[in-house]
Amino acid sequence: MTSRPKGFFSLTTIDEARQIAAEALGSVRTGPEAIPASEGLGRVLAEDVRSPGPVPHFAKSLVDGYAVRAADTAGATAALPAYLEVVGRAQMGEPTDVPLGPGQAVEMPTGGMLPTSADAAVMIEHTELLGQSTIEVSGPVSPGQNVIGVGEDVAAGDVCLAAHTRLRAGELALLATLGVTRVTVHRRPVVALLSTGDEVVPPEAEPGAAQVRDANCWGLAAMIRNAGGEPRFGGIVGDVESSLEEAARNAHQAGDALIISGGSSVGERDLAQRVLDGLGQPGVLVHGVALKPGKPTIIGVADGKPVFGLPGHPLSAMVSFHCLVRPILRRLGGEQDLWEPTVVARLARQVPSDAGRTEYVRVRLRKQDDELVAEPLFSKSAALSSLIAARGLVEVPLGSEGLDAGSRVDVLLL
Amino acid sequence: MTSRPKGFFSLTTIDEARQIAAEALGSVRTGPEAIPASEGLGRVLAEDVRSPGPVPHFAKSLVDGYAVRAADTAGATAALPAYLEVVGRAQMGEPTDVPLGPGQAVEMPTGGMLPTSADAAVMIEHTELLGQSTIEVSGPVSPGQNVIGVGEDVAAGDVCLAAHTRLRAGELALLATLGVTRVTVHRRPVVALLSTGDEVVPPEAEPGAAQVRDANCWGLAAMIRNAGGEPRFGGIVGDVESSLEEAARNAHQAGDALIISGGSSVGERDLAQRVLDGLGQPGVLVHGVALKPGKPTIIGVADGKPVFGLPGHPLSAMVSFHCLVRPILRRLGGEQDLWEPTVVARLARQVPSDAGRTEYVRVRLRKQDDELVAEPLFSKSAALSSLIAARGLVEVPLGSEGLDAGSRVDVLLL
Repeated sequence: MTSRPKGFFSLTTIDEARQIAAEALGSVRTGPEAIPASEGLGRVLAEDVRSPGPVPHFAKSLVDGYAVRAADTAGATAALPAYLEVVGRAQMGEPTDVPLGPGQAVEMPTGGMLPTSADAAVMIEHTELLGQSTIEVSGPVSPGQNVIGVGEDVAAGDVCLAAHTRLRAGELALLATLGVTRVTVHRRPVVALLSTGDEVVPPEAEPGAAQVRDANCWGLAAMIRNAGGEPRFGGIVGDVESSLEEAARNAHQAGDALIISGGSSVGERDLAQRVLDGLGQPGVLVHGVALKPGKPTIIGVADGKPVFGLPGHPLSAMVSFHCLVRPILRRLGGEQDLWEPTVVARLARQVPSDAGRTEYVRVRLRKQDDELVAEPLFSKSAALSSLIAARGLVEVPLGSEGLDAGSRVDVLLL
Repeated sequence: MTSRPKGFFSLTTIDEARQIAAEALGSVRTGPEAIPASEGLGRVLAEDVRSPGPVPHFAKSLVDGYAVRAADTAGATAALPAYLEVVGRAQMGEPTDVPLGPGQAVEMPTGGMLPTSADAAVMIEHTELLGQSTIEVSGPVSPGQNVIGVGEDVAAGDVCLAAHTRLRAGELALLATLGVTRVTVHRRPVVALLSTGDEVVPPEAEPGAAQVRDANCWGLAAMIRNAGGEPRFGGIVGDVESSLEEAARNAHQAGDALIISGGSSVGERDLAQRVLDGLGQPGVLVHGVALKPGKPTIIGVADGKPVFGLPGHPLSAMVSFHCLVRPILRRLGGEQDLWEPTVVARLARQVPSDAGRTEYVRVRLRKQDDELVAEPLFSKSAALSSLIAARGLVEVPLGSEGLDAGSRVDVLLL
């Protein structure tokens, strides 16, 4: 495990910080629970799902038309069609027990069961009915064409969904098809959330002259939900070490992870650092990340649970959460593929940056002609109104001195 | 309103189909309901939110340092610093009632309230404490620097969140800051869902020889949730006109929208079309969309409610939902900005297409070096396993004959 001297104030890069947390957490993941698959949207599989049977479990036609023996259509053309005798019609949902001899065809709806000896289907568009029971086939089909065989999609026993997959609509549709009605998923990580600051009052309260309402209790709770976690807000704690210690200890025990937000001033940061460091082994691993905004972020692991100190300012807390907390929570909740989608946009204005930190610039996104334009929101760091205009973040990489107007940039969606 | 002859089988383009539905629905949106703002994640505002007071409601420092009168620092340099007398310290959450005279400074934590006559703050890094109560300031600050004034972020009465905004983490953080604890949002559209087909059995059932389990009851329900709606599954109905009519009439009355899935064969499509057309005025508006897969999609409006007939095959149903149903449901639920993010990827292989339809090709996405690669999934149209590999859809536009290998494409995320 990477250990870092406590109180080390040089800045850790985002990638290093993630790596340090991943190493300290090792294979820690939330435990499994069995749930009805129909309620599985957004959950992460804790086990592979194997197909209980073959899909499809009967050979079927993929088109409206006729089940045939492919050989009977060999060489057929519009000018020299093949003639086949129609000996029956498949009914949806009913076994097709019509025997199909050479030179014969059975009428098929899409999804209908093929007769045993059929090996292809002719689309109705390529046939013409002559009289009651003869069709003209104007082109050949090859064996397997327009049909799907037993197990051709998924064989019985195949791993059709791998552990660590997040269940989306497609996965649920597949589970329904397979008849898998219960799945074993990772528990949603319970993320305890504490706000700190002598100046902070709840959203419901009327703040005094120099007080502010707590934005993070709602903002971070939403981000925890979006990362697959279950927020549990433990309240606002004043900047008194013993109170914060006690609240943090309880929250740490009750949850799978802990976030303390607050403390933009040096003294408050030190307090959060001491309290988080005292919760368990190995303690604080990162204090100070090369991220702007978000520099005073603290990351630690206490007895197998990730713990975070985020800046009190909602904008900084959100950027820090997105870049650092979110991937760690997603991994904790069992996900393996932590890829985040980015959209490409043209930068409307130049973005200067200092080279020493990875800077994230909030951008407004708008369509202009057929192009997406990212308009940087420059504002005083305290401007909460830019929280809502911002649809995404543009990274100005460490070591870069800025981005040129008109350049194409990747935008991380908020 | 655009009207189209019933039974019109030439294909409508996706854009036309959306336009036709939007015109027929006009201003129909789900009604308002008041909810606690803390539970508002993902909901859509039905009214503008105005700021009940200014943000911030007191002038504050944005840095750790000293509140000053900017004029007192004019011309200060490292070599010729300004000297100021420290007359007090602001406490977080407490009014700063120290009078600040010329040549004086008050020590400030970030977020602390400025003394009345201060108009700027000096960062602690640009000062040095000499003795008990004198600081050396090594650079000038201008009025307003490092501070934020009353209402500078949001003025009292400003519309800070507009109606039709979907509430995300940033919006919730802002509402908390404003002390807006209840919001009026659009009701989630209740979307009634019926599956049809004589061959279809529920996911819990063991299908007979030629039967299949219903995948859409779970897959489409998930997609309805992702579009902000509330699915209400009405069961599986056989292909008997009177049964489907009755089930559809009840479902249509109970919900804000209706989706009937099923019917890939011609007879079933006609049945869905007749039933949907009979539910109310103006009836079916689009039958057959230039979309592959998804061609047999039916779109109508019945007495102010959108009604849809989707193909029975889960892959086709999902593509059709994504391209046609989703934008209409989002609008019904009050959203105005229907933009969907796309990621850019390099196409791993050539994609041929026929020019007459907008074709959506399912792709697997993977990172390769630092680039995103989209690998087209070519499979028989019935292959359900490609439901899960597919992370996105690549559009091959109407009139194009395909996309070249190596070209950069926009991928719509599933």
